[in-house]
Amino acid sequence: MSDIMILNADQLRRRVPLDGAAIEAIERAFARLAEGGVAMPGVLSMHLPEANGEVDIKTAHIPGLPGFAVKISPGFFDNPTKGLPSTSGLMVVLSGETGRVQAVLLDDGYLTDLRTAAAGAVAAKFLARKDASRAAIFGAGMQARMQLRALRLVRPITEAVIWARDPARAENLAAELAGDGLRIRAEGDPEMAAMAADIIVTTTPARQPILRAEWLRPGQHVTAMGSDQAGKNELDPQCLVRADLYVADRVSQTRGIGELRAALDAGLIAETGAIPELGQIVAGRHPGRTSAEQITIADLTGTGVQDTAIAIHALAAFSKAQPHA
Amino acid sequence: MSDIMILNADQLRRRVPLDGAAIEAIERAFARLAEGGVAMPGVLSMHLPEANGEVDIKTAHIPGLPGFAVKISPGFFDNPTKGLPSTSGLMVVLSGETGRVQAVLLDDGYLTDLRTAAAGAVAAKFLARKDASRAAIFGAGMQARMQLRALRLVRPITEAVIWARDPARAENLAAELAGDGLRIRAEGDPEMAAMAADIIVTTTPARQPILRAEWLRPGQHVTAMGSDQAGKNELDPQCLVRADLYVADRVSQTRGIGELRAALDAGLIAETGAIPELGQIVAGRHPGRTSAEQITIADLTGTGVQDTAIAIHALAAFSKAQPHA
Repeated sequence: MSDIMILNADQLRRRVPLDGAAIEAIERAFARLAEGGVAMPGVLSMHLPEANGEVDIKTAHIPGLPGFAVKISPGFFDNPTKGLPSTSGLMVVLSGETGRVQAVLLDDGYLTDLRTAAAGAVAAKFLARKDASRAAIFGAGMQARMQLRALRLVRPITEAVIWARDPARAENLAAELAGDGLRIRAEGDPEMAAMAADIIVTTTPARQPILRAEWLRPGQHVTAMGSDQAGKNELDPQCLVRADLYVADRVSQTRGIGELRAALDAGLIAETGAIPELGQIVAGRHPGRTSAEQITIADLTGTGVQDTAIAIHALAAFSKAQPHA
Repeated sequence: MSDIMILNADQLRRRVPLDGAAIEAIERAFARLAEGGVAMPGVLSMHLPEANGEVDIKTAHIPGLPGFAVKISPGFFDNPTKGLPSTSGLMVVLSGETGRVQAVLLDDGYLTDLRTAAAGAVAAKFLARKDASRAAIFGAGMQARMQLRALRLVRPITEAVIWARDPARAENLAAELAGDGLRIRAEGDPEMAAMAADIIVTTTPARQPILRAEWLRPGQHVTAMGSDQAGKNELDPQCLVRADLYVADRVSQTRGIGELRAALDAGLIAETGAIPELGQIVAGRHPGRTSAEQITIADLTGTGVQDTAIAIHALAAFSKAQPHA
C-alpha cells in the first residue's frame, strides 16, 4: 500500500494553483467529453435530512488518461453554525488499467473549487467576446473570487463589479480584490451591475432568479455556475430565450439541475436535442459565438470529467515536482 | 487535516478479524435496515470495457452511528494475468453530523470480505438449524475460506466438504483448512457435497446454476452469496420454489442482481412484496425458520449498510486500541 500517494489540502493549494495549465486540463476534458468514449455515470446522491446534509459522489473515466477520480462531496448546511465550512470532501484516484488506488487527495473541496473556476474560464474563452474587459460577478463567496481570477486568465479584464445579496460582503470582496491592474467596486443594484459588464458570472445558491432577461445587452456573455441542484435557479428563464446561444456543460445534467430546468418547467424551451455542449465548441464541432453582438449563456453544473481531469492534473504536478522537492 | 485516520490493509487485517464482534456489528446493521430510517441509495456503477474493469460505489447512512462509509470497489478482471487480484478498493468514513472526512481505510477489499463473511454468519445464525454441524462450501476462493470460518462462529460445525469447479483447488483448500476440530474433505460431485450438509454456502461467480433443487433435503439452509451482478446465478431457480423460506438481504437488490432475478426471469415467482429481508428476521419482525424440517435460503448480494457498519466497527477497534498501542 506504500505506493499510494496521500496529499492534503495545503499541499494541493500550494502546488496546484488556478493557472493556465489547470484551465487547459479542464478544456481538454470538455473536448474529450464531446469526442466520445468517456464513461460518466449519473451522480450518486444521499440525503441526510436529520443533519441537514447530503453527499454527492461523481466519477468519470476519460480514455487516454492514466487514472480516473471518484469524488466524494459532502454538503452539511448547518456546519457554519459550528464554525465549519458547509462543503468538504476528497478525491480518490484509481488506475484506469488495474483499478488499484493510486492516490487519495484530501483536498477538502479545493480541487472542486479549482475545476469549477477553470470551467468558467473555458466558457469565457470560447464564448465571450475576445475584447471583453468588464466583468460583473454575482455573489461574494469562494467562487466569486475564483471565477473573477479565472476570467482574468483568459480575457483582458480591467474593470469588475460585485453584486451580492449582502452588500457588506460585496464591499469586502471588492476591497480584497482591488489592485493588480483591476478597478473593482461593489454595486448595490443588480441591473446596474449587469449593464456594466461584458461578462456576467453568477455564483450564488439562489433559488429565485437574480438576473433578469431585460437587463441583458448585445455582446454579453453570461456564465451561470451556482445551480447544481434541482431547486436552484439564478437566471430568469427568459434569459435562455433572449440569448442567441445557450450552451450546457452537459445537457443531461442542466436539464435536471441547471438553469435549463426552470426554462423547461416554464415551457419556454420544448426541445433540448439541439443544445450544444461546451465540449463541442472546444472540440470545434460547434462554432460557438459567431458575432460580436450575440448574447451567449453557459450553464455549468459541474461534471465528473472535470473532477477526473483536475485530479490527474494535480497528481502530475506532484509526480514531476518530487525529484526537486 | 491531521485528524483524518489513515489505515492500511495490514493494520486492518491484524486488528479487525472475523470474530463475534464483527458478526454482531453486521447483525445490528441488518436490524437497523429493517427498522427504517436508513438511507441507502442505489449502487453507482461505472464500466470500463477497454480495461475489462468496473467500479462500484456503495454508501449508506445508519442513524445513531457516528459516521457513514462510502466504499469504492474496483473489479478489473484481467488483473490476475498481471499478478494482481481482480478486486481492491477502499472505504472513506465521513461524519454523519458534519460530513467531514474522518478516516480513509485503504483496506484493498479486506473489509468487504469481512462484512460479506459476517453476513453469511448472520444468515446461518437466524436461519440454519441450531444443531447444524455439517457444512458444504461451493467454491474455493477467499469467501469459501471466510464463509466456513464464519459458520463455525455461529454453529457447531465439525464436518465440511468443499466442491469447486477445479477439483485441485478444492483439494488444496480442504488441506489448508483441516484441523482445529474440523473434518474436511474435497468432494468432486456437487450433489454428494450438497447431500452431506446441514448448511450449504455457494461462493462462486457462476453464471449457470451449480446447485440443483432436487438435491436439497429437509432441514437444510442455503446461503448464496456469489451473485452480485445481473449475469450471475448460482442456484437453480427451482430452489427458490422448493424452499419453505426465501430471504433476501435487500429485495430491491436481489430482484436485479441476486438469485431472485433468475427465478423472476423464469416466471417461477410472480410477486416479491411478501419476501422477508434478513434484517426483519434479526429484528424479530419475521419468525424466520419455524421448524427443523424447513428448507431455508438466504440470498446475499451485499449492501451499503454492511459497509458502513464494518467501517465504523473497524474504526472503533483503532480508537479503543490507541491508548495501549
